[in-house]
Amino acid sequence: MKSLLLWLAVFCYLGNSFCQEDGVIADMTCRWDAGLSESKQWNGDFFPNISNIQYEGPSSRNPLAYHWYNAEEEILGKKMKDWLRFSVAFWHTFRGDGGDPFGSPTKTWPWEDGSNSVQMAMTRMKANFEFLKKLGVERWCFHDRDIAPEGATLEETNRNLDTIISLAKELQLGTSIRPLWGTAQLFKHPRYMHGAATSPDIKVYAYAAAQVKKAMEVTHELGGENYVFWGGREGYQSLLNTDLKKELDHMATFLQSAASWKKKLGFNGTLLLEPKPQEPTKHQYDWDAATTIGFLQNYGLKDEFKLNVECNHATLSGHSCHHELETARINGMLGNIDANTGDPQTGWDTDQFLTDVTEATLIMLSVVKNGGLAPGGFNFDAKLRRESVDVEDLFIAHISGMDALARGLRNAAALLQDGVLTKLVEERYASFDSSLGTSIEAGEVGFEELEVKAFEWGEPTLSSGKQELAERILQSFT
Amino acid sequence: MKSLLLWLAVFCYLGNSFCQEDGVIADMTCRWDAGLSESKQWNGDFFPNISNIQYEGPSSRNPLAYHWYNAEEEILGKKMKDWLRFSVAFWHTFRGDGGDPFGSPTKTWPWEDGSNSVQMAMTRMKANFEFLKKLGVERWCFHDRDIAPEGATLEETNRNLDTIISLAKELQLGTSIRPLWGTAQLFKHPRYMHGAATSPDIKVYAYAAAQVKKAMEVTHELGGENYVFWGGREGYQSLLNTDLKKELDHMATFLQSAASWKKKLGFNGTLLLEPKPQEPTKHQYDWDAATTIGFLQNYGLKDEFKLNVECNHATLSGHSCHHELETARINGMLGNIDANTGDPQTGWDTDQFLTDVTEATLIMLSVVKNGGLAPGGFNFDAKLRRESVDVEDLFIAHISGMDALARGLRNAAALLQDGVLTKLVEERYASFDSSLGTSIEAGEVGFEELEVKAFEWGEPTLSSGKQELAERILQSFT
Amino acid sequence: MKSLLLWLAVFCYLGNSFCQEDGVIADMTCRWDAGLSESKQWNGDFFPNISNIQYEGPSSRNPLAYHWYNAEEEILGKKMKDWLRFSVAFWHTFRGDGGDPFGSPTKTWPWEDGSNSVQMAMTRMKANFEFLKKLGVERWCFHDRDIAPEGATLEETNRNLDTIISLAKELQLGTSIRPLWGTAQLFKHPRYMHGAATSPDIKVYAYAAAQVKKAMEVTHELGGENYVFWGGREGYQSLLNTDLKKELDHMATFLQSAASWKKKLGFNGTLLLEPKPQEPTKHQYDWDAATTIGFLQNYGLKDEFKLNVECNHATLSGHSCHHELETARINGMLGNIDANTGDPQTGWDTDQFLTDVTEATLIMLSVVKNGGLAPGGFNFDAKLRRESVDVEDLFIAHISGMDALARGLRNAAALLQDGVLTKLVEERYASFDSSLGTSIEAGEVGFEELEVKAFEWGEPTLSSGKQELAERILQSFT
Amino acid sequence: MKSLLLWLAVFCYLGNSFCQEDGVIADMTCRWDAGLSESKQWNGDFFPNISNIQYEGPSSRNPLAYHWYNAEEEILGKKMKDWLRFSVAFWHTFRGDGGDPFGSPTKTWPWEDGSNSVQMAMTRMKANFEFLKKLGVERWCFHDRDIAPEGATLEETNRNLDTIISLAKELQLGTSIRPLWGTAQLFKHPRYMHGAATSPDIKVYAYAAAQVKKAMEVTHELGGENYVFWGGREGYQSLLNTDLKKELDHMATFLQSAASWKKKLGFNGTLLLEPKPQEPTKHQYDWDAATTIGFLQNYGLKDEFKLNVECNHATLSGHSCHHELETARINGMLGNIDANTGDPQTGWDTDQFLTDVTEATLIMLSVVKNGGLAPGGFNFDAKLRRESVDVEDLFIAHISGMDALARGLRNAAALLQDGVLTKLVEERYASFDSSLGTSIEAGEVGFEELEVKAFEWGEPTLSSGKQELAERILQSFT
Repeated sequence: MKSLLLWLAVFCYLGNSFCQEDGVIADMTCRWDAGLSESKQWNGDFFPNISNIQYEGPSSRNPLAYHWYNAEEEILGKKMKDWLRFSVAFWHTFRGDGGDPFGSPTKTWPWEDGSNSVQMAMTRMKANFEFLKKLGVERWCFHDRDIAPEGATLEETNRNLDTIISLAKELQLGTSIRPLWGTAQLFKHPRYMHGAATSPDIKVYAYAAAQVKKAMEVTHELGGENYVFWGGREGYQSLLNTDLKKELDHMATFLQSAASWKKKLGFNGTLLLEPKPQEPTKHQYDWDAATTIGFLQNYGLKDEFKLNVECNHATLSGHSCHHELETARINGMLGNIDANTGDPQTGWDTDQFLTDVTEATLIMLSVVKNGGLAPGGFNFDAKLRRESVDVEDLFIAHISGMDALARGLRNAAALLQDGVLTKLVEERYASFDSSLGTSIEAGEVGFEELEVKAFEWGEPTLSSGKQELAERILQSFT
Repeated sequence: MKSLLLWLAVFCYLGNSFCQEDGVIADMTCRWDAGLSESKQWNGDFFPNISNIQYEGPSSRNPLAYHWYNAEEEILGKKMKDWLRFSVAFWHTFRGDGGDPFGSPTKTWPWEDGSNSVQMAMTRMKANFEFLKKLGVERWCFHDRDIAPEGATLEETNRNLDTIISLAKELQLGTSIRPLWGTAQLFKHPRYMHGAATSPDIKVYAYAAAQVKKAMEVTHELGGENYVFWGGREGYQSLLNTDLKKELDHMATFLQSAASWKKKLGFNGTLLLEPKPQEPTKHQYDWDAATTIGFLQNYGLKDEFKLNVECNHATLSGHSCHHELETARINGMLGNIDANTGDPQTGWDTDQFLTDVTEATLIMLSVVKNGGLAPGGFNFDAKLRRESVDVEDLFIAHISGMDALARGLRNAAALLQDGVLTKLVEERYASFDSSLGTSIEAGEVGFEELEVKAFEWGEPTLSSGKQELAERILQSFT
Repeated sequence: MKSLLLWLAVFCYLGNSFCQEDGVIADMTCRWDAGLSESKQWNGDFFPNISNIQYEGPSSRNPLAYHWYNAEEEILGKKMKDWLRFSVAFWHTFRGDGGDPFGSPTKTWPWEDGSNSVQMAMTRMKANFEFLKKLGVERWCFHDRDIAPEGATLEETNRNLDTIISLAKELQLGTSIRPLWGTAQLFKHPRYMHGAATSPDIKVYAYAAAQVKKAMEVTHELGGENYVFWGGREGYQSLLNTDLKKELDHMATFLQSAASWKKKLGFNGTLLLEPKPQEPTKHQYDWDAATTIGFLQNYGLKDEFKLNVECNHATLSGHSCHHELETARINGMLGNIDANTGDPQTGWDTDQFLTDVTEATLIMLSVVKNGGLAPGGFNFDAKLRRESVDVEDLFIAHISGMDALARGLRNAAALLQDGVLTKLVEERYASFDSSLGTSIEAGEVGFEELEVKAFEWGEPTLSSGKQELAERILQSFT
Repeated sequence: MKSLLLWLAVFCYLGNSFCQEDGVIADMTCRWDAGLSESKQWNGDFFPNISNIQYEGPSSRNPLAYHWYNAEEEILGKKMKDWLRFSVAFWHTFRGDGGDPFGSPTKTWPWEDGSNSVQMAMTRMKANFEFLKKLGVERWCFHDRDIAPEGATLEETNRNLDTIISLAKELQLGTSIRPLWGTAQLFKHPRYMHGAATSPDIKVYAYAAAQVKKAMEVTHELGGENYVFWGGREGYQSLLNTDLKKELDHMATFLQSAASWKKKLGFNGTLLLEPKPQEPTKHQYDWDAATTIGFLQNYGLKDEFKLNVECNHATLSGHSCHHELETARINGMLGNIDANTGDPQTGWDTDQFLTDVTEATLIMLSVVKNGGLAPGGFNFDAKLRRESVDVEDLFIAHISGMDALARGLRNAAALLQDGVLTKLVEERYASFDSSLGTSIEAGEVGFEELEVKAFEWGEPTLSSGKQELAERILQSFT
């Protein structure tokens, strides 16, 4: 009953504040988003109808409040905000226009003037900072070309970028807001259609190098803690016209140069590769975590890079997000998470906000086992649905995503403190805690000795894997 | 802290009761399932270490108790057991042996003697009833050939079946246990390799008819409330050797005969078709709900049948389970649910117990909107993992599945009572509540009139679809 | 050796004609597409370097000649061009810009001025006719909004369309070129983001009606033989905010109005629905052939519509293209084919030209069994890869697609004339040619009679399905 | 016309030889496989109705003759049989029983007595050799447990195996027939349900070691040229109960021991890992070629192993077979091919014979570029459909598979000799042939120098990727 009343309050807030008091909807213009629609005549305030988002606890039904994320609360000895290190993705939140392969843009934020000017870029950057503050998030991520328009020449483009970086720096002043990471957009412009580091054209390779050099510089300048490579065009559309070996070699050389430049630049952030199996190309070289780690190792680059694991990319590669995180973690390569989810029945990147609590719990199990992600964090590489065109939708989406992970953190912590699941796993492998087990693991026991033991021991007995019990335990904690 | 203690208690119960007190595992036989392993020397009790499963509420950490399912508790004016009408699937629970395409059977339940005799079949049926009672479940489902062995001839097979049916009837006596449904196994025997109703061989068609006739009789005899058709071989492996039209025609004729036989038999239960897109064949004719409904309508059979929707089959066909349920529901065709789930990254039927609460909430939203499923129910067409070989695993799995749906029911009821989500949907379509809308829906408004309105109205304004808000609301209730 | 020389000739034509004679590439600008790059400074000729494409026969290695398509040659009593009835898709060929979800447009055809003006639209239409003539193709397909720009109001948009239709009519004059079909683009503009016929907003429904009304008029005016509905937004993104039943009802009402308008207009062409399972939405109502046929039947619309089967949509729905064609064919619903193919490892619509001969043979088997497709045909709903930016690529792609289907036609004809595969299928079902079989198929034989036969006949013997033989036969004919 | 007559001849051979002359089928027993059905009363001849398979050339319509495979014919300087090195897979061909997850075995070869005795194993081995000889194939592959039954103890099992190995050795005598490779079956027995090398039970690890030790010994004894590891259970069903890092470590240690044992044994064959992404488990550690190579490198095992690439496993992992082959090839890791194919719409391993010529051409392009596969080859890891129960089906299937690859070899050779496709690829990368390109590839050029070049060069011009031309060229050669 109380919950009902709470929701009704929300409902009224959302919808009826400008409408009749009896809750009957009088006419089509009097809808629950009426108040926000008003804001479409922009008057210089970005989010006039949205206050700072507050923690209200699990019993709240206010969609514009945190139910589970309580930034300063300590979990397992660390503040929630330090476990979670949330970041807003500039490209989706401020450049996502709702376009898709079959449809034109749908978003017309009040502050947009329809241009791609430097002036417009400056306005957007201000919106970004207001958004971060109202949300209570201290990190943001960007591509160079999201935040500043491409000019007629690379020189002009760099100047545009410098203008915006100056503004961002100014806006950061006196705040703890900093980039979680920056990156170069090497996939949108036609020049990169065949790849950037893996383009067959040496001029494109050089252009990409110049662009990454600059993007690293500005990330460093803003106090960014990481730098990301997502190779959306580093792949092939057809093997028929591709020299696979050469492209992989070029990619390695390029990344080696990036690692060298990082040192020369004095940038201490982590370099991250972001796996994705395909889309836009048929095959991308950073297919999944295992492939990417293998590539790095093959070219002697493993110590220079970590991974940025994206959940939607994980599922597109045929793995659960949990699998990709664990693969990165046990290799010491888990550096950052692009927090989103895909539709399990859909074969392309939907980049939805992750709202499922069970999934979030599994993710947080990996993160807690990893000791957290710092200097990495959780970047919301997620976008509104094309049909969501209210400014408040941006807030609701981020809040849901943050609450999901916050609740996941609480669950994971409880599960690990409880210990029963951990013990279940340890006991499964207990037979290797023997001295023979230790010798085997040290590589000291050959097939001949093992054959002797096998004859001696006879047929092993079967032990249940207890998967249903493990799932039952997880269920009890979500 | 309290939760920790509870789990520890469970843990001790499960694992350490025969072991050292310090928690160190002394030897390999001293494991947390040690007690249950003991039971493998069968002494006539099926589940000696398992008591009747009780409701202990959400704070319980006992895996062998219900945390959410409270059979007699009323939700939305109906008892939980009447909303949920759970059923144990005889085939998975008592005939599932753990074999897979690459592996031999792994289960060796204490009561199994390794034979497929009528005697063994009788023992299993007794185990079934003890299982149902300890679980507190009043329905079971069976294939004819699961419960009784095939004989040398159809006559002998029928006699075997009669023997078991007599026993089951006797075991039912004085209980409220009845079959939720029966079905004929028309996919396992080589004679059905090309199909049963769709076999190119008229002798197989006749054999299948005789088998279904008998299976309907015994289902009726036991007081079964429904009868199911799953056409695992009613499909093709290759179009090159298939007459598609002829096979579909034969399937329709066969089902028409089944509907006639039902009447003659005096059986008042519902006939149900169970869609599955593929596996074991490349293409099965009951591909999904929409295809199956279209088939029934095409052949004038829609009034004689409803659907048995299986969640794992739904996802294999590229749909969410929720989609399949809603498709069946709005067509008045939702008759029963095979409650299970698949692995979202796996392209075959894994038939796992559904333990995810969000998924269960969506399922129960459909069920509550459908006014329940009776005379259908929830059949656990789900199996233990191959590696789960303890008798207790059978219980844990069912309990998790029941608790998930029970919690889903609670969530769905709260969500519907709250009403905010329902209202959100209604308002999206409110413009059709006008008199013009009503006329359009009545098919009274043609393109010419609509063109006049379009010119008059000009460009429609964009309204947000509020998907993120809808997801946020769902998240708050799960 | 001869083949080698032929290719070398082609190679020189393509690449070295402006380069050094020794075949060594002197500098980067001297590449094998050098001649075509020249054409980028447009002088009023659309395809100055391309002559009319000729049939040169299977031994030709000239990529700009037909090796298998010989328009006037008779196969099974009909000219190849009458079996194949090829059509160029205006949208892909003249409006496809190479943009994708992660990338900006890449195509800059010489005749494009960067605008979306009516003048530009007129130029493009002229390019279309020159392309059709050089290719020797007599049909084209269009969306209303591809060929003419949207104006500020619907009235202005209609006037723009009229201007272009006048021009197209003029260009058609004295030729046998006519639209295979027209259609309305109801998916790209934001107003349709929630659907057109299935939008929750009555104003959008009316707008869509007005648009389709006009699109049917202009298709009729140009002598189009069919009219297509592809419901790219007629679906949902989330069931949470969707009234599934209402949307399906609205879609049916809308289509009923279209069928009525067709009669009033005096248009005798076929109305076609084009199934696609998803993308851009999570679920589209015209999921696949079976679903679409079921929908039409459910709403009493089956006699008014046929299907336009697209191969890439088939595979996205989990079916082979052959399956979708056969499903449509045996229901008397095969009206047209959108000839393309998808990447089998890719979960989105790649709309590639179908070049695989085996696949083309299976398609043509369906088409020949259907007695051809007229008044439908094969529309190349296929696009250049984003990285293919030469004008000649447009020709090469279409020629490959045409040759594949032409070769498929030759193979299918040979296979059907041979008869061994047909006979193999007929014999599998021969047991139903008996008088009992005929009675069964007439629905005259009930389960009781069949049970008698089953007892009488005993265990059926197993016959091989001969799938490998069927595949061997197909292999021999491709 | 000629082709028609040829097929009719075949048809008569297959079907009507015992039937009426007018081609009308008199009764059900008089079918085109009638002759072969006769053979089901076994008289000691395995394949009495099948003669040695001969090469008859492309115009033949005899399904029991080679149309493209001409063993002794030279292609690119090597005999076809040396390029192709075909092998029959004992498990599918002689132990495949037609069982599937929903169905019992269907095959009842005339020589099978229903037992799993050593005697029966000996009979099967003789059948294998007759099959190889009639087919003209000189290699075979086996699992230890396919060819000889498991005994009550490992000692007894080893003795059974020795008996069969003696027989096989005897049967090999005087022939050039040898194992292409042997392997240990570590996935079928329940003891391996949690893995073999990755089992949590040390006793299972030891047992597996003993089994592999022996399997390597007998492979060596028979003159096998390779030894394969397929880790069907080396993976997990759930991460919840798995220690991922420990399992990977154990797998590496196990493989290291295998490599040591190989040396001690004096076996010079190649050790091969066979990737498969999943099935039977949710995730297998040898997911795909890139993952497996990365694993080997990570544990310092890369020099000791190569890969056995299976096409159906490739597509299950989301890659084309061509991709997996090229990935292995450019890493110097392509050792063997399991020649089969999967159904592109099916999410499990169908292990079909590859009959598609275009696919075979792509495979052979990789193989020819690899300089062949020796000491590896093409193992037909492919099985009859469950419904194919005639002995002749075994022959037809293998012949189709061999002909597909033989035709693929001819096409690939022609394509490579032609050179136009090779040249197309080389030219795409020609800009890296410059001195700067060479320096970049040598890792000598940093971002600063590249930035200078980028400023100097300005915007790169776009070149077409010419994918459609490449596909057109391939089309011309298939």
